[in-house]
Amino acid sequence: MDEKIRITYPDSEKVYLQGEIHPDVRVGMRRVTLTPTVTIEGGKQVRSENAPVYIYDTSGPYSDPNVEVDLRKGLPRLRESWIQARDVERLEGITSEYGRMRLADKSLDHLRFEHICPPYRAKEGCQVSQMYYAKQGIITPEMEYVAIRENMNNRELGIESYITPEFVRQEIAAGRAVLPANINHPEAEPMIIGTNFLVKINTNIGNSATTSTIEEEVEKAVWSCKWGGDTLMDLSTGDNIHETREWIIRNCPVPVGTVPMYQAMEKVHGKAEDLTWELFRDTLVEQCEQGVDYFTIHCGIRLKNVPLANGRLCGMVSRGGSIISQWCMAHQKESFLYEHFDDICDLCAQYDVALSLGDGLRPGSIYDANDRAQFAELDTMGELVQRAWAKNVQAFIEGPGHVPMHKIRENMDRQIEKCHGAPFYTLGPIVTDIAPGYDHITSAIGAAQIGWYGTAMLCYVTPKEHLALPQKEDVRVGVVSYKIAAHAADLAKGHPGAQVRDNALSKARYEFRWKDQFNLSLDPERALQYYKEANHLNGKYCTMCGPHFCAMRISQQLKDCDYTEE
Amino acid sequence: MDEKIRITYPDSEKVYLQGEIHPDVRVGMRRVTLTPTVTIEGGKQVRSENAPVYIYDTSGPYSDPNVEVDLRKGLPRLRESWIQARDVERLEGITSEYGRMRLADKSLDHLRFEHICPPYRAKEGCQVSQMYYAKQGIITPEMEYVAIRENMNNRELGIESYITPEFVRQEIAAGRAVLPANINHPEAEPMIIGTNFLVKINTNIGNSATTSTIEEEVEKAVWSCKWGGDTLMDLSTGDNIHETREWIIRNCPVPVGTVPMYQAMEKVHGKAEDLTWELFRDTLVEQCEQGVDYFTIHCGIRLKNVPLANGRLCGMVSRGGSIISQWCMAHQKESFLYEHFDDICDLCAQYDVALSLGDGLRPGSIYDANDRAQFAELDTMGELVQRAWAKNVQAFIEGPGHVPMHKIRENMDRQIEKCHGAPFYTLGPIVTDIAPGYDHITSAIGAAQIGWYGTAMLCYVTPKEHLALPQKEDVRVGVVSYKIAAHAADLAKGHPGAQVRDNALSKARYEFRWKDQFNLSLDPERALQYYKEANHLNGKYCTMCGPHFCAMRISQQLKDCDYTEE
Repeated sequence: MDEKIRITYPDSEKVYLQGEIHPDVRVGMRRVTLTPTVTIEGGKQVRSENAPVYIYDTSGPYSDPNVEVDLRKGLPRLRESWIQARDVERLEGITSEYGRMRLADKSLDHLRFEHICPPYRAKEGCQVSQMYYAKQGIITPEMEYVAIRENMNNRELGIESYITPEFVRQEIAAGRAVLPANINHPEAEPMIIGTNFLVKINTNIGNSATTSTIEEEVEKAVWSCKWGGDTLMDLSTGDNIHETREWIIRNCPVPVGTVPMYQAMEKVHGKAEDLTWELFRDTLVEQCEQGVDYFTIHCGIRLKNVPLANGRLCGMVSRGGSIISQWCMAHQKESFLYEHFDDICDLCAQYDVALSLGDGLRPGSIYDANDRAQFAELDTMGELVQRAWAKNVQAFIEGPGHVPMHKIRENMDRQIEKCHGAPFYTLGPIVTDIAPGYDHITSAIGAAQIGWYGTAMLCYVTPKEHLALPQKEDVRVGVVSYKIAAHAADLAKGHPGAQVRDNALSKARYEFRWKDQFNLSLDPERALQYYKEANHLNGKYCTMCGPHFCAMRISQQLKDCDYTEE
Repeated sequence: MDEKIRITYPDSEKVYLQGEIHPDVRVGMRRVTLTPTVTIEGGKQVRSENAPVYIYDTSGPYSDPNVEVDLRKGLPRLRESWIQARDVERLEGITSEYGRMRLADKSLDHLRFEHICPPYRAKEGCQVSQMYYAKQGIITPEMEYVAIRENMNNRELGIESYITPEFVRQEIAAGRAVLPANINHPEAEPMIIGTNFLVKINTNIGNSATTSTIEEEVEKAVWSCKWGGDTLMDLSTGDNIHETREWIIRNCPVPVGTVPMYQAMEKVHGKAEDLTWELFRDTLVEQCEQGVDYFTIHCGIRLKNVPLANGRLCGMVSRGGSIISQWCMAHQKESFLYEHFDDICDLCAQYDVALSLGDGLRPGSIYDANDRAQFAELDTMGELVQRAWAKNVQAFIEGPGHVPMHKIRENMDRQIEKCHGAPFYTLGPIVTDIAPGYDHITSAIGAAQIGWYGTAMLCYVTPKEHLALPQKEDVRVGVVSYKIAAHAADLAKGHPGAQVRDNALSKARYEFRWKDQFNLSLDPERALQYYKEANHLNGKYCTMCGPHFCAMRISQQLKDCDYTEE
């Protein structure tokens, strides 16, 4: 493993904006320095400066040259002092049976992360979740952090924004936003998921069977953060997922989610009918104590609703959903996830783990979109989310899937109505089934739309969807495609200051400041590569139009001023 | 040059559907044969057939094993007998001054297409355009052709469709649809552009300065047809564009468009102020007689509107628009394109060349979207399109450009209102400026939306947009991205039978008929490649979920039937 992993962006500097309520809040941002505009006016060169642009930065300490990151030690524990000031106790060690068993197994020593800290937990009878504090009227450092983070360029440029620390608090208190922040993942930089904030994207990584190593998964995690992934789901289903997860969490500057059912299934060797609540509960404790920030749990599947999927073209395409359905049918009983939902909430509350109510009945083909099965599950989620809130557990709702464009709006409107404004977190949606190999695009189309309508977080889809597990390059393409969808939605929603970056890039384009154009783009390396491959002769034109046909150059001449390349 | 170029698709057969009104109409389609569904029920194998799926086929004779294509001879002249039956005369030779000059130049012989036919032209005082026939109540073979083509699977599957030959006629007569069909491009297979038909896509090819050869451009043209491009614009601006165009048209089974201004500019060595109506007119004659099916002409730019672009972030980004604006400003006169619009129409009517009213003032950044400059030009286009129709010239309207999602709808609604229902033909729109290198995606998001709202044709954008001219692989990715956008729009619009292919592919996916899934996809080669690279062990699961976690397999077991791989 390359322990000294480092993320760099061209002509960019890591800067920190300080909190006012909490002066120890320091929000990392990427500041892109731009070259000046140089025009020829009346035969003379005139220079005017271009303000730097601040970019929302998910790369954490990896892009800070002043922080020495060592993957073997994990990231700095940014939030630890805030957490310690709360009603938490530090346990003597991990409490899950499975976790202890793995720890005792000497044969795993070579795989194990070395510096495991004993976990925190809420003191008996105490509450420690962000939602709890929000309801108490308390603005936590995490809340101030995200308020600063969401505004990026706004303070600097004097752009008015409704996003204040108090607004963040209100949104979390009302359940309209989630700030995933397990007290055992102090390395994570606070971020917020809600309709009234920047649209976020999640990336899925994780090995299946024997496809990849721990090193590869950690590398993919950091890679995802480099390109802009806001949260990361570790969907590993192979061996050693307990140890892999520890490595990922300790080195991940963004919140980490999992589907605990996948690990539970490994424990019963793939036999769904052998699953029990006790085994599942132990899995949750294990992951709570490692620092997983949110759990996807398919608790919305009711025994009576399982047969609704039978008339479908593609049945069930959710792994977690199909597993728990299999359990329900085998035992002819209501699912233990549903039956024990309050117990799950009690556990999550002790560590401030957020719940992502998984959509086990999401449509897997556009033919199945918006059907009875899907909407029956949504109704159940609406009931459960209120039960979570009653226990101060933050929660959001997962959504489809495969949906043609004209049926997307109904998904959003119905989710808002049935789930009382809880954030929506969708996979795509994919708007046509006919493009395997290009589903990052079919789904970015749907994702941009549903993000505009109000979805708070978009789960990325890579070009390999439906065909294979994503490799590193697929992660990059998937993340960038989803940054596009999310940003397009931010623009359409009118998020304060969202257009600053577009305007700066377009101005650079018009003025032939190629370097600034690349530096401001979502993937500066790719843009530069394409430009260079085309063998440009100079900065006054590109191969698209050649020297005589550049519209922008002619257009500038019509304004009686000309631009010159630095 | 590889003269024996051939297009193949896996497990696909070229079939022809015959016309009823015109029995000599034979519409080429691609029929994909599917494997049967094999289930295990009660321990026994049960087979049930899956109906073949017909796919709209833009590959022309290149995919017909019974046709020997030789690029040096050009494609079979499919429509020639229909054209000859009209009020046309065959000229003794080409009549443009420039064309004759090139023909006389022996030094060009090695570049020249060998089998140039003398052109057709309407007889003096006669009308030959599809719009003219439509208004007369005549259903041409071309009209019946597109009616059959648009319905693909519908006859076979008994899906009701409003698209009849008579409906096609009515739409063309009303100006709501365009059937581009220059009488000098008899090789082109008829296709239709209109809101009530399948959304079409255009691909741009063409060299600039010294970047590519005739061979490469012809190869790109065929390549574009392979992936599904419905029309092709040759935007060459370099040397020998007259000869290049001849090669492309003679070998192109889809309508070809150009921006004649580019060639006119070459003739004045890049000096816009030296352009004259006479020179431009000669260029139009030259291209009418070669067989260009539609001209993009930026005749909507009025002298008074040119300064409206000054307050913009990106000024003018249309090459044609900036050139004619430069002319207007240099001469302080109304543009000759606007002044001679009726003359242009008279010329186009003689050859049935359609007009694409170019949007010279389209926004080049989202900041500039929907501004006064853009909408002032749209108003002029609304005036001009009626003048075109008065002369039975088919016409459509070009649209933006860079537009954030929430401003897209206004573009469509306003275009319908101001341009009296003429088809809209947009470039994207690109919904954010921050993703150079990925603008096939930023623009597919906007294209899908505006296609759903009613845009009839989408001009593709490749990953190289804003950076360089597209290479062959970029053309493929651009075309497939736009087929996705167009198909997503067809689904959302409820085009009759559009979902047949999605459903067949999803059924194949659910039943682990991998080969059928690939064969039905927009890019079978890419899908197969990704699948193979991941080293699948068998057909019962893929690397995404591994052997124990396949949701679809579990879901099938819940239905008490299991699928087996052939």
